Amino acid sequence: MSKLLHYPLCPFSRSIRLALAECGVAFELKEERPWEWRPDFIRLNPAGSVPVFVTENDFPICGAYAISEYFQETELAEGEPHSFQLFPGDADERAEVRRLIDWFHGKFNGEVTTYILDEKVFRSFGPRSSSPDMEAMRAGRENLRYHLAYIGHLVESRSWLAGEALSFADLAAAAHLSSLDYLGEVPWEEFEQAKNWYALLKSRPSFRPLLGDRVPGFTPPDSYADLDF
Amino acid sequence: MSKLLHYPLCPFSRSIRLALAECGVAFELKEERPWEWRPDFIRLNPAGSVPVFVTENDFPICGAYAISEYFQETELAEGEPHSFQLFPGDADERAEVRRLIDWFHGKFNGEVTTYILDEKVFRSFGPRSSSPDMEAMRAGRENLRYHLAYIGHLVESRSWLAGEALSFADLAAAAHLSSLDYLGEVPWEEFEQAKNWYALLKSRPSFRPLLGDRVPGFTPPDSYADLDF
Repeated sequence: MSKLLHYPLCPFSRSIRLALAECGVAFELKEERPWEWRPDFIRLNPAGSVPVFVTENDFPICGAYAISEYFQETELAEGEPHSFQLFPGDADERAEVRRLIDWFHGKFNGEVTTYILDEKVFRSFGPRSSSPDMEAMRAGRENLRYHLAYIGHLVESRSWLAGEALSFADLAAAAHLSSLDYLGEVPWEEFEQAKNWYALLKSRPSFRPLLGDRVPGFTPPDSYADLDF
Repeated sequence: MSKLLHYPLCPFSRSIRLALAECGVAFELKEERPWEWRPDFIRLNPAGSVPVFVTENDFPICGAYAISEYFQETELAEGEPHSFQLFPGDADERAEVRRLIDWFHGKFNGEVTTYILDEKVFRSFGPRSSSPDMEAMRAGRENLRYHLAYIGHLVESRSWLAGEALSFADLAAAAHLSSLDYLGEVPWEEFEQAKNWYALLKSRPSFRPLLGDRVPGFTPPDSYADLDF
């Protein structure tokens, strides 16, 4: 059976867990702690990061970018597309999906996720453990508001972030927000439209495993797994 | 005619200039200074970053990720693949290409390019101009050596970075290195294999326009445009 090496609070891993569940791909989930730098894991992915999807033939597909595009391609090659398309639409529409994936896995990650998640959680693991940089966290929280407003702006004129169909852009965005939500860091009440969009995603069956995640040392607020917030 | 909005020393823009030239796509090149935050440009790409490819129908494709995949898809859809494939091979081989694109546009960018290029060049532009952080630059230079060794390791057993065919992975890697090389920051002499790989890319016609780039205030070393280093 194919397997996904992931870390529960890693937003890139989460985006792929959502994508595989939406596509109906069966896989075994294995937790990997990248900061332990496990030699067998480094052989699979020299970058030392999760997620890594290992196919039934033991071929490692490394990173959310390669994994998501791999499922898009193998899906299309099989001639029997799943009911869910990670990259729906024509070439122009898919370019919009990818612009937004880049936005969340790139820009949002750099401006928000790393500032909050890395400081609050990952900094406490591994040999170089230290206390969080409060200025970085403050910057991350400030930037988060700008991104929540952008989500609101997008869904004002569209059903989903990239257009009329749910896509991997929504899953990538929701993955980052869900990791921050686990830490009680998302001011949902101030951003009604983003909250409504997230509530739709949160109630999908693909989301359920994420809502069951628990990381020792970090207890999520009650609202984390509450479908009505 | 379609056009590419770029900035000469931006490695993401460079990777797309190389890709379009290799694919034989005709386009007009327009310089954009992202730090000027030009309203017409922000309307095209709300992320405010280059590259942006504007199609003949005035549709903006934003970012190296969306642009590269767009050309892969429209190429395949036309049924007449160019002689050059950005993502050659089968699904597994393309996953390896994308792992390495992620490596250079993600990991290398975060560990090397931003530390050196942002500190040395981009910090001097825009309203928040300040002097470079020497510690960041030192870290970037140290990390660069590790990545040059990794390139050497890859081409020890392969013709190109991702396998037997030249791919967008090589262009992405060469784009980052070429921006750093413009600043005289690449210790080629210590990394013979990486140097030989880069020399092959540097002598391709697609590379010529990059070697002619000049940025006011920054004069490249003579070796920058010298095909024999």
